[in-house]
Amino acid sequence: MKKFSSDQPLTLSSGKTLPSFKIAYDTYGTLNATKSNAILICHALSGDSHATNLNSETENPGWWQLMIGPGKPIDTDQFFVISSNVLGSCYGSTGPISTNPETQGPYHLSFPVITIEDMVNAQAKLIDYLDITTLFAVIGGSMGGMQTLQWSISHPNRVKKAIVIAAAAQLGPQSLAFNTVGREAVLTDPKHGLSIARMIGHITYRSDESIGTKFGRKLQENADYGYAFSTEFEIESYLKYQGEKFVNRFDANTYLYLSKAMSYFDLIKTYGSLESAFSPCTAQFLIMSISSDWLYPSKQSRELAKSLIKLNKTVSYCEIDSPHGHDSFLMESDQLSTMIRCFLGSKS
Amino acid sequence: MKKFSSDQPLTLSSGKTLPSFKIAYDTYGTLNATKSNAILICHALSGDSHATNLNSETENPGWWQLMIGPGKPIDTDQFFVISSNVLGSCYGSTGPISTNPETQGPYHLSFPVITIEDMVNAQAKLIDYLDITTLFAVIGGSMGGMQTLQWSISHPNRVKKAIVIAAAAQLGPQSLAFNTVGREAVLTDPKHGLSIARMIGHITYRSDESIGTKFGRKLQENADYGYAFSTEFEIESYLKYQGEKFVNRFDANTYLYLSKAMSYFDLIKTYGSLESAFSPCTAQFLIMSISSDWLYPSKQSRELAKSLIKLNKTVSYCEIDSPHGHDSFLMESDQLSTMIRCFLGSKS
Repeated sequence: MKKFSSDQPLTLSSGKTLPSFKIAYDTYGTLNATKSNAILICHALSGDSHATNLNSETENPGWWQLMIGPGKPIDTDQFFVISSNVLGSCYGSTGPISTNPETQGPYHLSFPVITIEDMVNAQAKLIDYLDITTLFAVIGGSMGGMQTLQWSISHPNRVKKAIVIAAAAQLGPQSLAFNTVGREAVLTDPKHGLSIARMIGHITYRSDESIGTKFGRKLQENADYGYAFSTEFEIESYLKYQGEKFVNRFDANTYLYLSKAMSYFDLIKTYGSLESAFSPCTAQFLIMSISSDWLYPSKQSRELAKSLIKLNKTVSYCEIDSPHGHDSFLMESDQLSTMIRCFLGSKS
Repeated sequence: MKKFSSDQPLTLSSGKTLPSFKIAYDTYGTLNATKSNAILICHALSGDSHATNLNSETENPGWWQLMIGPGKPIDTDQFFVISSNVLGSCYGSTGPISTNPETQGPYHLSFPVITIEDMVNAQAKLIDYLDITTLFAVIGGSMGGMQTLQWSISHPNRVKKAIVIAAAAQLGPQSLAFNTVGREAVLTDPKHGLSIARMIGHITYRSDESIGTKFGRKLQENADYGYAFSTEFEIESYLKYQGEKFVNRFDANTYLYLSKAMSYFDLIKTYGSLESAFSPCTAQFLIMSISSDWLYPSKQSRELAKSLIKLNKTVSYCEIDSPHGHDSFLMESDQLSTMIRCFLGSKS
């Protein structure tokens, strides 16, 4: 993991200013002489910069190893891939667990509320620092897709291709509701609440069908009910495990900030309409949704595509046929791989 | 509110025994001379016996006033309507807040885990006590629908008509998952957890569309974001209000018991198959689902109806067309009212 440090202040959407900030990032592949083969990868809420390399702290493999590497759809033999940890995260970039230079203590909840636009502006400083003018592509799923959309709008001349997966111009009503409940759980009880928020999250990241196929109503140990409140159903055990694992690896305040940034993301509110938002864009878009994703329903992705078509922008839309729900974009998928590989084409 | 007290022990599904128990109930209308016009109403998780009369404690109107009363679909001019509070509830029946006669202290979590079958067996004792052999109808939605199904199976000769609304033979995978998270929230933090569980519940009781229509992404007070973690979105405020209201009116342990009873309810596991479960039934069935209900999807109601058809039982199935999700059965609905009125017919 590398770190980019900016001593320049960053003005945020809220009007507040971060006096300085750091962005953690990793790179894979080699930047070519004309600096025209750089791809920026944007991660989702719980992600980090380790897109395709081992995280030495957690010993987890990269979260998008399936997609990025030599000969893979995002081919590091051809592309120089930059994976940046977002502003506000707890994985190396400046966020609530960082030291406030003004107080020398940790920010915690005194960290300013940030937006997806703030994350993108901080990433843009990293790209400046890497001396790259134009990104060949920006790619992201979920919160990463929001960043990708924002990149194409805020920096229209710096993005040649934008791949937006399982994302939307704004969280839909139900998804916004779940987001607020997750924050409420953390606000009332940071530790247990973070676990509960993550359990809710994991239900929303999967489809009813995929929970059914993997867990159904299976009991963990015994054939019959135990008539007690101990963990019995396999799905219960799985969700509790996910909740506890998350508490051990993630900061509760960071969850609040990133969740709030997602709740705030709203291209229609910010720009008046999707057409106004996309009007300056010059990127070619690939918008992809997942058929069983109910957190970011396909309908919302189609709305993105329709607005771009209305503006005569270049856009491809594809609904990935998968029963696994929102998290499908992190799983093995020939459709997803082929679409990304073909859309990126060859830089050689 | 009336109370039925049984000094006879009640053997539970778990094999444990309640030495004695009370069931709170209300009645509306008059039992006819042949005792053939009695209808039992079964309530959902948070319900009580006050189906159509003011609850003097909470000052809430009856939870199914729309449906029960003189001239209404469940017509108290014709029928003698019994609304019983379930075993395990905190609204007058024996449950976790009751005094354990053996210790003279409250049961709390020493109350035995109960099932829908246990609730129905306790209700049957109440019906015995009222000297009613056969119920003209048993009617319930959600957890009340589970009780209705169980009544038709456990007491096949005592139920002439069964109206099962927005229920299923078992919670589906996603609904079971949400149920386990609600309990986990309460188990880790009874007070805040109960509020969080209720907030999750309220999302699942509505559809994405109905949350969108009523709340969407509207902000509570200001036109612009406040860049703070205070309550901002209307949906956030609504859910918090519902959570807090529930904490003030409901017992956290009771939530655990009733939620567990719903998770345990599984006609397929208990009887081997739906066909085996329904085989002894003599009731005429009206199965109704709600088009936008994703907690008890229509698919599951159709499975109930198909099994009954396979067995040559008398069954009508109707999908109520409503955008309001699971809770539609508590709302004004001409379709629902008409179906219930016609199915019950006239006893005069």
